[in-house]
Amino acid sequence: MTVRAAVAGASGYAGGELLRLLLAHPEVEIGALTGHSSAGQPLGTVQPHLAALAEREVRPTTADALRGHDVVFLALPHGRSAAVARQLGEETLVIDCGADFRLADAGDWETFYGSPHAGTWPYGLPELPGARALLAGARRIAVPGCYPTAVTLALFPAYAAGLAGPEAVVVAASGTSGAGRTPRADLLGAEVMGSMRPYGVGGGHRHTPEMVQNLSAVAGRRVAVSFTPTLAPMPRGILATCSAAALPGVGAHDVRAAYEKALSDEPFARLLPEGQWPSTSAVYGSNAAHIQVTLDASVGRIIAVSAIDNLTKGTAGGAVQSMNTALGLPEGLGLSTNGVAP
Amino acid sequence: MTVRAAVAGASGYAGGELLRLLLAHPEVEIGALTGHSSAGQPLGTVQPHLAALAEREVRPTTADALRGHDVVFLALPHGRSAAVARQLGEETLVIDCGADFRLADAGDWETFYGSPHAGTWPYGLPELPGARALLAGARRIAVPGCYPTAVTLALFPAYAAGLAGPEAVVVAASGTSGAGRTPRADLLGAEVMGSMRPYGVGGGHRHTPEMVQNLSAVAGRRVAVSFTPTLAPMPRGILATCSAAALPGVGAHDVRAAYEKALSDEPFARLLPEGQWPSTSAVYGSNAAHIQVTLDASVGRIIAVSAIDNLTKGTAGGAVQSMNTALGLPEGLGLSTNGVAP
Amino acid sequence: MTVRAAVAGASGYAGGELLRLLLAHPEVEIGALTGHSSAGQPLGTVQPHLAALAEREVRPTTADALRGHDVVFLALPHGRSAAVARQLGEETLVIDCGADFRLADAGDWETFYGSPHAGTWPYGLPELPGARALLAGARRIAVPGCYPTAVTLALFPAYAAGLAGPEAVVVAASGTSGAGRTPRADLLGAEVMGSMRPYGVGGGHRHTPEMVQNLSAVAGRRVAVSFTPTLAPMPRGILATCSAAALPGVGAHDVRAAYEKALSDEPFARLLPEGQWPSTSAVYGSNAAHIQVTLDASVGRIIAVSAIDNLTKGTAGGAVQSMNTALGLPEGLGLSTNGVAP
Amino acid sequence: MTVRAAVAGASGYAGGELLRLLLAHPEVEIGALTGHSSAGQPLGTVQPHLAALAEREVRPTTADALRGHDVVFLALPHGRSAAVARQLGEETLVIDCGADFRLADAGDWETFYGSPHAGTWPYGLPELPGARALLAGARRIAVPGCYPTAVTLALFPAYAAGLAGPEAVVVAASGTSGAGRTPRADLLGAEVMGSMRPYGVGGGHRHTPEMVQNLSAVAGRRVAVSFTPTLAPMPRGILATCSAAALPGVGAHDVRAAYEKALSDEPFARLLPEGQWPSTSAVYGSNAAHIQVTLDASVGRIIAVSAIDNLTKGTAGGAVQSMNTALGLPEGLGLSTNGVAP
Repeated sequence: MTVRAAVAGASGYAGGELLRLLLAHPEVEIGALTGHSSAGQPLGTVQPHLAALAEREVRPTTADALRGHDVVFLALPHGRSAAVARQLGEETLVIDCGADFRLADAGDWETFYGSPHAGTWPYGLPELPGARALLAGARRIAVPGCYPTAVTLALFPAYAAGLAGPEAVVVAASGTSGAGRTPRADLLGAEVMGSMRPYGVGGGHRHTPEMVQNLSAVAGRRVAVSFTPTLAPMPRGILATCSAAALPGVGAHDVRAAYEKALSDEPFARLLPEGQWPSTSAVYGSNAAHIQVTLDASVGRIIAVSAIDNLTKGTAGGAVQSMNTALGLPEGLGLSTNGVAP
Repeated sequence: MTVRAAVAGASGYAGGELLRLLLAHPEVEIGALTGHSSAGQPLGTVQPHLAALAEREVRPTTADALRGHDVVFLALPHGRSAAVARQLGEETLVIDCGADFRLADAGDWETFYGSPHAGTWPYGLPELPGARALLAGARRIAVPGCYPTAVTLALFPAYAAGLAGPEAVVVAASGTSGAGRTPRADLLGAEVMGSMRPYGVGGGHRHTPEMVQNLSAVAGRRVAVSFTPTLAPMPRGILATCSAAALPGVGAHDVRAAYEKALSDEPFARLLPEGQWPSTSAVYGSNAAHIQVTLDASVGRIIAVSAIDNLTKGTAGGAVQSMNTALGLPEGLGLSTNGVAP
Repeated sequence: MTVRAAVAGASGYAGGELLRLLLAHPEVEIGALTGHSSAGQPLGTVQPHLAALAEREVRPTTADALRGHDVVFLALPHGRSAAVARQLGEETLVIDCGADFRLADAGDWETFYGSPHAGTWPYGLPELPGARALLAGARRIAVPGCYPTAVTLALFPAYAAGLAGPEAVVVAASGTSGAGRTPRADLLGAEVMGSMRPYGVGGGHRHTPEMVQNLSAVAGRRVAVSFTPTLAPMPRGILATCSAAALPGVGAHDVRAAYEKALSDEPFARLLPEGQWPSTSAVYGSNAAHIQVTLDASVGRIIAVSAIDNLTKGTAGGAVQSMNTALGLPEGLGLSTNGVAP
Repeated sequence: MTVRAAVAGASGYAGGELLRLLLAHPEVEIGALTGHSSAGQPLGTVQPHLAALAEREVRPTTADALRGHDVVFLALPHGRSAAVARQLGEETLVIDCGADFRLADAGDWETFYGSPHAGTWPYGLPELPGARALLAGARRIAVPGCYPTAVTLALFPAYAAGLAGPEAVVVAASGTSGAGRTPRADLLGAEVMGSMRPYGVGGGHRHTPEMVQNLSAVAGRRVAVSFTPTLAPMPRGILATCSAAALPGVGAHDVRAAYEKALSDEPFARLLPEGQWPSTSAVYGSNAAHIQVTLDASVGRIIAVSAIDNLTKGTAGGAVQSMNTALGLPEGLGLSTNGVAP
């Protein structure tokens, strides 16, 4: 089986990572690469690390360019995916790395994104209970946001086992590729190196309702999330430090057991041995999430930490993992759990 | 008035920063510099950035070397300060940058540091309500830990005004100078660049009881702190993201008013204009703490964020600020609120 | 004597560094701050590290705004200084941090900058033989480029003593603040962290003729310079690795003696003790240049390395040093030789 | 064909990178992992990024542990390889990532390494003219040093075509993983971040004679190399800026043609399109070397720049490439030309 795949948004960070992974995928043949400001250029001028595609031309992002592929990955600015997807046949697997089809609640969408809700697609986080059944055979997939991937994987075992109270507090640090490739003064290297800073504080970050949606679904009741993202001086990676009150009577053994049960069979969500905590460097360029958890008895909170590569497991790797699941390929085909370190 | 000051531990990071600040202090003359493994070397070989002291010899740390100064700064490993201080006369101002005399509760000390409690000295955080009166004229001062400085400044206004619930959740990112200058494989540049990782998770970090002590004193009741420190890929800086439940009826205006009241007269704890959030780069090398706060109504939490330079306001600058206060000098003498950026 | 100083271009990196230094200058009172896109905003929104000026408003850059000061610093894009300077009276000391008045040769200017030559002003590198006499009392000063500062200080002693052949090879690494604050995709943090890359290779960098001019003047004959700048993953700093063939008969002792002779009385150009090599971190935020030299006998070349902070000694500190010299103040007033490290 | 491979020195940076690459190699099965201070631990505690091997135990480095494999990779401190290799049969392919068998000249070895010369093995830089013939079927291979790999690839085309004078000047920047994993104060993250500094200046770096050996062999006459390595604030990567006088009559077209001729068929040494210069980020984690060259007519020098990942093409990737060549496998099997960026 050879899958012919197109990537829309090939000159951005998510698009570049998709191409890096697809180049290593044994069943994928890379078709059209499309972009906006880079259209007409060879890919090598915008993605110099992708030597194998250096001479491939970036074409303008149009439905014509994207049609005729088995899979189309959309790595477009938020709000642009629906128009493109509509023009692609139902037989095409369309995988949206944007936010457009992640949220089930139209009100949440409109509040956080300020445009009409385009709909909801199967959610591409295979580790979430019940997700694989929805993804198998799907022809439309919404790839989770990078922060929601990290936070959901860190906390869902606690909620699935009914151990945690309904308010989670999350502080996450992200590498600056998470902010995209559009030039901005506050993202200049001289500004970000040596600096940590928060943004979207106080509930304003668009990934918040997605975390609420995921954790609430697992918990079977509404879970509120206090989410503070911070920008860290590194190109890639998310470290999510998550906590919630342990429900009365919950002990350290219960917590460990819940995480082992939830994660022991997961190929890409790895509970580390006790005492070993995640670091973003250990998952650099890999599709693995590293997770650790403990119970802080002195304050009665479950503390769970996860590390992912925001571009790999947090975007492009998650997309490929979902593609494999949708197409009936082995879920981990073309993906690695090994990071590039140091 | 010329103050003659000695620095014990001159070859470490805290000692180097003390010297940098003392060189710029108009009333200080730098006397003995002492160290351990660097004893006998010119300071320039271990602190090449301190050109003005390059040819000064580092002497072994002994009471003899330190006697005869108006002020002695101790920047020694934890547990070493008491023995030295005991040999210095009561007329000498001894300022301990270590942890030895910070905690009032002997049990906390023994639990977290594993050695007998040496006592408690006036606590060198002038911004804490009531602190300046205790520091004026003091001849022994315990400099706060770097994390407790950042966290206390971020949260004390909320507790002083009775706005916050008794459980605070803190996630803080620190530059790697906070881990000291002793070689360790996990602190090698190749390991820390590009990496965020937590440590001391679950209540184990030694700075936790100090935060509890400070916030409880302000609140007039016990405040529990869930504290997760993380190591960030930068040389200096702490960004502390702190939150606590807002008590019923507390509104955004109350929160803002409490912070304005607590901080408006503080020269080194600066509440930023609404909407502007702290970054560690803005306080690099400065004695300022930058603080911002908001109320996340969707989850009912007060979110306060502070940024400090862990070596300046978090250690050496705080020490000089306290020295000024103890000696009756203008509190900000020789200190700057302006950072080195970008 | 109080000097009233204005800064045009206050929202850029050079302007910010000028203000940081001027705030610490005991004889300077900061007057107008002007900018372009930031005009109308409080300085705190664009230079959050300058707490002491946070509420000062940035005004549009016009001659009216700048008039009436004793000193006007211009930190404008290349080619903009002449028009402003022309409108400022001869009694005003105008110090141009741009390139406009550095080059004596109009042809070089036109070749490298592509616009008509505006003239030549006294060159603000006091360490250059003969420079101080020209700067004393000057009312127009051209601040050297950052790379030419580093390279000239590293090599002029060899040429002044007649030890080196007429072809120098220079490879220099600069922090990314050297590229300015205008947003560009290739300067995004995610692009520059973890990356070294050259630019302007093959003689194209505009600072090349300035190096040639300086070294040729010292040597008394034309010195050619092969110059390759590289961009390093750090906010600030230049490390210049410079070499030239040693003339026949030149020995290691001659080289050391020449550097000691040229630099021993210089307050800001410091020849390190033998065996100690410069690092950019040791001069971070300081006005010092650190210099070391050796003779590689196996290839017959003099190897000289210098480290400066591109924004301090390489721009704003050099400007203040020249201001002091022009106004008859102590040359080092308000400037430090001590860096902020680690 | 399945190749069973052992790695001695599995807990260092080179060993970790070897394992990362071998895990992705379709014909390799990973056998014994050995180490020194990490012996007895699971690999996951020292190489947390290698999830697939996390539970494999590190065994002490002994000949017994290494025997019985088709290939043994040695990633040991310099001087340790000979004793181990002697105990492994001639049928075993032994690939030494250390320096022990690189130099043909025993005097050079003794001068630079201070111990008796162990011998010379076929040199594992397939791109060097004539190298592939020596590597085919070899059972002992010396992997080139990281700097010599970068410098030789950048300059050999000029020397092979007889275009360059006999003195090359090289300034190279390396990520700090090149200095190894043994804790040292000067390699702490706080020291290296934000800092560029040279080391081994003046001909003292041990990789110098290896560069001389390679370029002299290609040139057919002795080539002297002035080599200055610098430490850059990044985990990985080497950027080598190399130049040499162009011989009389050599034009830009000759230079381009020579590089095209030398590199056009090379899978891992890629001459970039004209005008595009290498960056280390583009080869991060990849086995590619990116190379660009120009003629600076104003100084008559050929300027060639190469970028490699010091751990991949510069060590472990080069080792695997040579293994493939020795075993008759496709040279690029298991290796990628695509980097991990940004």
